[in-house]
Amino acid sequence: MSIINLDYISGNPLIPEVQRAMIEAIKKNYGNPSSSHRLGDEATEELERARKKVAKLINCGSPEEVIFTSCGTESINHAIKGVAFARREEGKHIITSDIEHNAVLKPLRGLRRLGYEITSISVDKYGRVNPDDVSKAIREDTILVSIMHANNEIGTIQPIKEIAHITREKKVTFHCDGVASVGVIPVDVQDLGIDLLSFAANQFNGPSGVGGLYIRRGVRLWPLLEGGFQEKNRRAGTENLIGIIGMGVAAEIALKEMESRVNRTKKLKEKVIQGLREGIDDIILNGHPDHSLPNLVSVSIKYIEGESIVLMLDEEGIAVSTKSACASGALRASHVLVAIGRDYADAQGTMVITFGRDTTDEEIDRFLEALTNAVKTLRRMSPLYREAKKE
Amino acid sequence: MSIINLDYISGNPLIPEVQRAMIEAIKKNYGNPSSSHRLGDEATEELERARKKVAKLINCGSPEEVIFTSCGTESINHAIKGVAFARREEGKHIITSDIEHNAVLKPLRGLRRLGYEITSISVDKYGRVNPDDVSKAIREDTILVSIMHANNEIGTIQPIKEIAHITREKKVTFHCDGVASVGVIPVDVQDLGIDLLSFAANQFNGPSGVGGLYIRRGVRLWPLLEGGFQEKNRRAGTENLIGIIGMGVAAEIALKEMESRVNRTKKLKEKVIQGLREGIDDIILNGHPDHSLPNLVSVSIKYIEGESIVLMLDEEGIAVSTKSACASGALRASHVLVAIGRDYADAQGTMVITFGRDTTDEEIDRFLEALTNAVKTLRRMSPLYREAKKE
Repeated sequence: MSIINLDYISGNPLIPEVQRAMIEAIKKNYGNPSSSHRLGDEATEELERARKKVAKLINCGSPEEVIFTSCGTESINHAIKGVAFARREEGKHIITSDIEHNAVLKPLRGLRRLGYEITSISVDKYGRVNPDDVSKAIREDTILVSIMHANNEIGTIQPIKEIAHITREKKVTFHCDGVASVGVIPVDVQDLGIDLLSFAANQFNGPSGVGGLYIRRGVRLWPLLEGGFQEKNRRAGTENLIGIIGMGVAAEIALKEMESRVNRTKKLKEKVIQGLREGIDDIILNGHPDHSLPNLVSVSIKYIEGESIVLMLDEEGIAVSTKSACASGALRASHVLVAIGRDYADAQGTMVITFGRDTTDEEIDRFLEALTNAVKTLRRMSPLYREAKKE
Repeated sequence: MSIINLDYISGNPLIPEVQRAMIEAIKKNYGNPSSSHRLGDEATEELERARKKVAKLINCGSPEEVIFTSCGTESINHAIKGVAFARREEGKHIITSDIEHNAVLKPLRGLRRLGYEITSISVDKYGRVNPDDVSKAIREDTILVSIMHANNEIGTIQPIKEIAHITREKKVTFHCDGVASVGVIPVDVQDLGIDLLSFAANQFNGPSGVGGLYIRRGVRLWPLLEGGFQEKNRRAGTENLIGIIGMGVAAEIALKEMESRVNRTKKLKEKVIQGLREGIDDIILNGHPDHSLPNLVSVSIKYIEGESIVLMLDEEGIAVSTKSACASGALRASHVLVAIGRDYADAQGTMVITFGRDTTDEEIDRFLEALTNAVKTLRRMSPLYREAKKE
């Protein structure tokens, strides 16, 4: 049975061009880019070719502003801990938002134990940060603001350009977690005016286990991985060249196909939302109606448990998620859903549907049918639902 | 022209079994191991299969004691910073040796700036640490000892078991950098009695950009990458599954072929040393004559510059190194060579020759001939050499 993948955000499937490039790299058996003989030269060329492609995707001023990391998480940890340690003598105050990814929140928790102070900005019911709140939160000793571009659970896109305008004026470093947005929607670091941007290849049909960090020229931060002289001393460790080559090809194609991908996923999103509204009552659509990712729908279905839906759809060969794969080990309600006002029960009944360039209308139809049936079945068994409907 | 690779330590070529497994993984397009649907299940199975193979290579008590990292450097940084932060309230004193890899030294330098105190143990002329020196250096506030298993520039193997005996008695965490030894010589974490062991797949014919960290059950350390719940909360970030699958296969084959590989490389090493001694005068062989890696020869050739040799051999299609690829961006004399008593000039004239399972006797012959000729040519042009020979 072929599987309908509506959990693209856990990792997009590799597209044929990326597969071919990676297989070729495996067969070529490149050397180490840091070697000074010709085995190293070929590897260096491939590395720099990939860097240019990735830099172009986010419109860097120069490819040198991109370093490769082993995932979005490394990139985010690098940015946050790197700035925290590098600017520690200027202050120990950091600002973030209530709906960041755990890759932001957990390093901040660690920094708090090391004496840093963290201010977390709350969001509105759509999950948006008000730039004025960031402005008000900035103090004399604020060294870093970390706000994500697009949220990976509800899709809401933040007013990054406005926030960057504020941080730049106040000389605070601005890190933006772009994992859910880079390669999915247009992201232009120069236009946004940010200092640091994290992203991951598996969000745009590249391999898992490869990411990148944009470091605007002049931004000071400590490396997270220290040792060799790779990446101009900014990230030590022998490179995952096979993965990086795959990322380069994926970035090139994402840029080329950007407009058609956005249009295509927008239409799929409308179809999903319409299908949900028509097929299932008592639902809440999460995230901002306009400022949001085109490839993601978050829906809270009352009186059911999201995990049961995931299992029932899995039986039908349909893969969806209750929240980000990164948080699937967590038993608590998503902090993102709590932040936008969902109660515990609604948060438990939330599904995240994500799709991409190869998702078809037929797959969406099959999914909507299966979901509607699954919800009916589950609600028939729910005393809470029967009670609610009696009233 | 086919290239003779005598720079195995910069990264072993992938063997066909590893290539096949990685290509198959690319074609299968696995999901995210953290997903709760079946796309995730298959990925999890592959991940755990690889973990078992890697755990077996170093004889862990349980596969759960291994986590995957993005390289040896990440593994080392994780161990050192992780223990430093986790045990910071017990003390801030750390012990290391003078000949560690930069992946150990640089994080320690950073920790020093954060208020930690570092004691570095000197080594004898063969590069060996005396366990008594470690014992004497341990204080009330010592929390961590980090000593490497085998040195990547001179091959010397340390008395790890003896050191582990001391650290265990004094309740100090012992991290061992095993990047140059794991997969090359037998390494048994239970027999050695260490707490943490770092290693990298590209040292045993696996892919670059994948490593591992052995964490003995009960050892406390902070994660370096924090975010999702991967690796039982010990290393966040979506896994480089393709690379990890390659590492698993490489580990399995390394274990199976261990005896034959060691015997084979030992013979090649004898051949190299004999050839050097017979063909070139005024050389110094670095490292311990017995306690050393079988796949590495370090030789200081007086009156020449190692970089010139690398370039001349490269012209002949022979890849060698002056020191580790990780340090090839550094212009200073290797701290390892300085620590064992080489002067600046000798350190500059040092080559590291490393080889592996596919290196042939003919390749060694061709290398020795090319090297002998290159040294003759270079020395003819060296006023220092002419002067020395006149006397």
